[in-house]
Amino acid sequence: MTDGVPGPAAGIASAGVASWLEQPAWDERGLIAAVAQEAGSGRVLMVAWMNREALAETVRTGFATYWSRSRQRLWRKGEESGHRQQVQLLQLDCDGDALVLQVVQVGGIACHTGRHSCFFRNLQAGEWVVGEPVLRDPAALYPSRATPPV
Amino acid sequence: MTDGVPGPAAGIASAGVASWLEQPAWDERGLIAAVAQEAGSGRVLMVAWMNREALAETVRTGFATYWSRSRQRLWRKGEESGHRQQVQLLQLDCDGDALVLQVVQVGGIACHTGRHSCFFRNLQAGEWVVGEPVLRDPAALYPSRATPPV
Repeated sequence: MTDGVPGPAAGIASAGVASWLEQPAWDERGLIAAVAQEAGSGRVLMVAWMNREALAETVRTGFATYWSRSRQRLWRKGEESGHRQQVQLLQLDCDGDALVLQVVQVGGIACHTGRHSCFFRNLQAGEWVVGEPVLRDPAALYPSRATPPV
Repeated sequence: MTDGVPGPAAGIASAGVASWLEQPAWDERGLIAAVAQEAGSGRVLMVAWMNREALAETVRTGFATYWSRSRQRLWRKGEESGHRQQVQLLQLDCDGDALVLQVVQVGGIACHTGRHSCFFRNLQAGEWVVGEPVLRDPAALYPSRATPPV
């Protein structure tokens, strides 16, 4: 929903900005939710956020760039782990406040825990139960860090 | 990311609340992003939001209930159109701020525009291009309304 959130002022702020980049209903933080779905398997790998710059870079490079809310900077997915996401298709929803990215997940690991998908916990009988294995030790994914990112 | 958002105080506020309901990292609005994915086809149908009450009702009834940010009330998906979503599985992501619902979409139409999925616009050559047909006239989905909901 746009919820009356103003976009950039027509004219100055939009000068030179591609019209497709203004069609998403950027929220009051300038963000849109982005769902990365694995092409082929259809598996939902992760949900993250994009701002205009992240979306523009994603389209320009063909690889997923998000906006990290915790780090308050562009997050080039796989910049440390190498597990980039090659984007095959971008889809916008009816009210413009969410994107789906159809991606090829390099390395087959989207999650910082070393699992294929970030959605590895299933609700079963009143508990969130881990339903898929760690494919690679997170310490090996982020060798430059004392502790893996969260 | 939890981003340090405090949960309810342990003890009093959590008394009687199921622990699985406290494990999502509810944001400062008390919400979590929820992705509805069609079981079988794997198609991402929509992205919406849930609060604790919506998630609890979803689990209790087996049908998707969301929180409508625009209407500021519980939104029992399909309450007007009949296009309910029967939930087969709920999945929580690594940092607890997003859910995936594996659903059976009653009527095969998730979108208020009468399309199968809300993600019907594809970015092609710098334009968002409608990529799937209207299966049912929205006016027929919401007969009690002068104009269909947005």
